[in-house]
Amino acid sequence: MHAVPIEKLIEQFEQLPGIGRKSAERIAFHILDFMSAEQASAMAQTISEAKTKIKFCSVCQNLTEKDPCEICGSEKRDKTTICVVENPKDVSAIEKTNEYHGLYHVLHGALSPMDGISPEDIKISELLMRLNNGIKEVIMATNPTVNGTATAVYISKLIQPMGIRVTRIAHGVPVGGDLEYADEITLIKAIEGRQNM
Amino acid sequence: MHAVPIEKLIEQFEQLPGIGRKSAERIAFHILDFMSAEQASAMAQTISEAKTKIKFCSVCQNLTEKDPCEICGSEKRDKTTICVVENPKDVSAIEKTNEYHGLYHVLHGALSPMDGISPEDIKISELLMRLNNGIKEVIMATNPTVNGTATAVYISKLIQPMGIRVTRIAHGVPVGGDLEYADEITLIKAIEGRQNM
Repeated sequence: MHAVPIEKLIEQFEQLPGIGRKSAERIAFHILDFMSAEQASAMAQTISEAKTKIKFCSVCQNLTEKDPCEICGSEKRDKTTICVVENPKDVSAIEKTNEYHGLYHVLHGALSPMDGISPEDIKISELLMRLNNGIKEVIMATNPTVNGTATAVYISKLIQPMGIRVTRIAHGVPVGGDLEYADEITLIKAIEGRQNM
Repeated sequence: MHAVPIEKLIEQFEQLPGIGRKSAERIAFHILDFMSAEQASAMAQTISEAKTKIKFCSVCQNLTEKDPCEICGSEKRDKTTICVVENPKDVSAIEKTNEYHGLYHVLHGALSPMDGISPEDIKISELLMRLNNGIKEVIMATNPTVNGTATAVYISKLIQPMGIRVTRIAHGVPVGGDLEYADEITLIKAIEGRQNM
């Protein structure tokens, strides 16, 4: 149907998350029809460069240009608390709140027996190795999914014997959300987790 | 917020059609976190390669790897009819029907006084130059938008004096669509364009 280089280009974009065949075609034609050769080569170079420059932080496993990353290397962060998340974009999400000042640990996934993802496939041992010096609390901020919760429970059982406080982020009705549209499990969690006003 | 190479990567994807900030972040983190270095470099190379290999056909102005393109160079196509479209992906859409066997002409846009796009900004002169040898009909298949229709009217006024038949694709209710949800203009066009059963 399409010329081979166009088809290849479409296939490249089709493999990205949230992009189907139609969107991939639209993007490919946009690049070929509306972008200059310079813009296209800048895009190609940015992809290669980002992939070369960005590594995992040897401490928290987050994506970073320098090692240790800015957060792990910062003097201003509270080094007694580690917030455990599944993915680098979860770190970005929490950082945007400007409310958390501790450290992070990125697991790069969650336990999932169905998909064959076991403890050694995610960065759990790297987390345990960090728990020697002065860590007082580990906040489990994995996703509120079956796999995320199982991962939080699994890790907390490994950490609790060390005498470190392990907490889980609160589940409940999202702020600005409508009670009517909250699912039952969320409502149950919201009631269970109620606090004094 | 993000490291510079990550931010640059996000910006590259953000400029693509249909991709907002959130999707661009998701794609950038997917590339950095889940794609291998080989996969990322293959993607970068595919973009560069496609942009280098794919040119405009010197006859119909469609995107093509060889010049003239497969359609213009084919012995099987009806060389007396030209279907005029706005963009290369419109050619793909019509080709998928397997019902049209003539040639194409890609304008690469539509007239738009509001955006400063005038006749010399799209491939109109290239179309006029093709109308010497044996062309019997020009089908205006620009989009059924204000700009697309204006472009069709503008071009048809240039071509009609040459004694060539100029037609416009039919407007009407989409097949499988629901009359109830058709807008008024479409319904008016559908009634105006009614045919004997």
